[in-house]
Amino acid sequence: MADTAIPQLNPPRRILMGPGPSDTHPRVLAALGAPTVGHLDPYFLQVMNETQSMLRQVFRTQNPLTLAVSGTGSAGMETCVVNLIEPGDKMVVCVNGVFGGRMADVAARAGAHVTTTEQLFGEVFSPEQISDVVHRVKPKVVGIVHAETSTGALQPLPEISKIVHEAGALLLVDTVTSLGGTAVEVDAWGLDAVYSGTQKCLSCPPGLAPVTFSPRAIAAIEARKTKVASWYLDMTLVRNYWGQDRAYHHTAPINMNYALHQALAIALEEGLEARFARHLRNHLALKAGLAALGLSYAVKEGQQLPMLNAVLIPAGVDDLKVRQQLLRDFGIEIGGGLGPMKGKTWRIGLMGETSSPRNVLLLLAALERCLGDQGAKFAAGAGVAAANEFYRQNA
Amino acid sequence: MADTAIPQLNPPRRILMGPGPSDTHPRVLAALGAPTVGHLDPYFLQVMNETQSMLRQVFRTQNPLTLAVSGTGSAGMETCVVNLIEPGDKMVVCVNGVFGGRMADVAARAGAHVTTTEQLFGEVFSPEQISDVVHRVKPKVVGIVHAETSTGALQPLPEISKIVHEAGALLLVDTVTSLGGTAVEVDAWGLDAVYSGTQKCLSCPPGLAPVTFSPRAIAAIEARKTKVASWYLDMTLVRNYWGQDRAYHHTAPINMNYALHQALAIALEEGLEARFARHLRNHLALKAGLAALGLSYAVKEGQQLPMLNAVLIPAGVDDLKVRQQLLRDFGIEIGGGLGPMKGKTWRIGLMGETSSPRNVLLLLAALERCLGDQGAKFAAGAGVAAANEFYRQNA
Repeated sequence: MADTAIPQLNPPRRILMGPGPSDTHPRVLAALGAPTVGHLDPYFLQVMNETQSMLRQVFRTQNPLTLAVSGTGSAGMETCVVNLIEPGDKMVVCVNGVFGGRMADVAARAGAHVTTTEQLFGEVFSPEQISDVVHRVKPKVVGIVHAETSTGALQPLPEISKIVHEAGALLLVDTVTSLGGTAVEVDAWGLDAVYSGTQKCLSCPPGLAPVTFSPRAIAAIEARKTKVASWYLDMTLVRNYWGQDRAYHHTAPINMNYALHQALAIALEEGLEARFARHLRNHLALKAGLAALGLSYAVKEGQQLPMLNAVLIPAGVDDLKVRQQLLRDFGIEIGGGLGPMKGKTWRIGLMGETSSPRNVLLLLAALERCLGDQGAKFAAGAGVAAANEFYRQNA
Repeated sequence: MADTAIPQLNPPRRILMGPGPSDTHPRVLAALGAPTVGHLDPYFLQVMNETQSMLRQVFRTQNPLTLAVSGTGSAGMETCVVNLIEPGDKMVVCVNGVFGGRMADVAARAGAHVTTTEQLFGEVFSPEQISDVVHRVKPKVVGIVHAETSTGALQPLPEISKIVHEAGALLLVDTVTSLGGTAVEVDAWGLDAVYSGTQKCLSCPPGLAPVTFSPRAIAAIEARKTKVASWYLDMTLVRNYWGQDRAYHHTAPINMNYALHQALAIALEEGLEARFARHLRNHLALKAGLAALGLSYAVKEGQQLPMLNAVLIPAGVDDLKVRQQLLRDFGIEIGGGLGPMKGKTWRIGLMGETSSPRNVLLLLAALERCLGDQGAKFAAGAGVAAANEFYRQNA
């Protein structure tokens, strides 16, 4: 080994204003670095119980089967799909962005007969469209994305949930980007299988996937004729590990669970309603500032995510140059477009800890510099002034 | 939320002498708590490259497809199986412990026609036994566990690898407990798909699964007629994310990858040969001490793991009482038996950071107290004295 230099770790301090991960609270970083205990240690069992209880509060559910899957948000998607779907089952997947498309792929691999219903990227689904497809297909499961991270659109769910249940199907929902940043009402809306990630509005590093399953979903799992295709994600095994039995399944990521525990505590200390209001307020302030710089949203008014601002890149402005300058000169990360939005949009995240007046003003100030360097025209200081004026009027 | 007390995180300081996780170096904990960056940040891409390079050194391989799966060791097992197996493929799984049994379950769920070949728990497989079964079954894949964490037995691999390849099959190997603690020679032994965990002899918290695939294994993956059943673990997608393309797949667990990067650096700074020698020396010292206390191993001489000491619980001694006393009075975790070994064995881990003369002496001293409280007979101080004598003679 003597001839190879051994790399050292020395990460830079960024401000994470992309589509996730978001900034991490120092208390969460401290929790990550707390002493590792065994995964069957009485203390860790307590951490698991408390995490489940806090996740139920954040998901607004009484579902006993609520826990953190030992993988990232995409593993949460796969968990929900493979537990509900047996080979040959019919599933409708609503595709209006990259993550809906991914869900269709995951479902097909699980052996589902997948019917996709589509919308333009950036648009949302109407209850009528869902009604048409569920009555035509009569699926076992309907999958939909609440907050499409690839497009910045927020999908209303209550009416769709009613339609899906009246048709006898289960509703599977992606809340990766919405959970902790805007209302997610698992019980009130009647959602059956819901997954999220830790690195968006919960402001914990990526690595775990909160999931929750309704009694209806559990009945479907218990009625399966075949084993779940994935041993690792099989909820009939995982729930015995997180439940009273503590039956050994896999070794949970101890320190990642510490971090989620702490991040959930921070969210509950703030209070969910206050947290949602904060996300909305900073979103609106950023929006006022971006408008003053001549930037408009890629998503219709009324359907825009409060935690992820998808804006159109102005004509003549170089996507990559702006993002590179933001990162190099200011240590600020924003996201580019995904899929068909690549090169057309920026995705500016105001998620969890990142959502603050400080970051809104900083981003507007830095963006003015970068856009100005690209020859964009606006009144000097217009972005910051507009955001400050918004905050002043909405103090 | 006002009526519910919000839990705070305050983990105790343990000495982790069970079957994993092992103790974590303070530098690894510090790395875990370093500032989160974006998963497409140039700095994180560098961390991924360096991690791959260090994993290749630890696996002793040139395999380009060497990376850390975003799940625990069990996800690594599932990754290797589901990428190599298509529905209807024949797989032989060697079962001499809990983890071989698990592999058979994972393979059956992936659609393999599984043939198990069995050995008593604690025994290992002879080349003849493997030869018989591969010539009878003619499988596509043979799966075997290098270090059975449930029994403490070390499986020799070079001769078996030759037999498997001569029969035209691929060799899939579990090195969860062995990697970083004893020789794992992926290239020299010709292993085709190998997975490990981070929380054993690499002394990183659980949460990632190092894997490596030989060119033969990649050819098998590329020759698949069906998509890999798991989207999350599909190496044809994951490798484009870790490779030059950096094609977005999932969001990697940033801080967990920091921790693995640091843990690998620590292992390479020590040097692999020195690390293996340290594990062996402390194992032998513990063994001398345990013998002086009247404890014998559950595994034959010559097949015992240096990092996991499976010892028989003496007659008349209460398994649970001893483990609880060690934890309560001394903050020391050791493991109980798994599966048919439950109540019959203890599993004392000396993995990674945990493997030190200090911990060997402490465990022997504390165990003397607990065994004495249970009425076991031995000369007072005999365990510590024997270990000290071993260290003196092997300085």
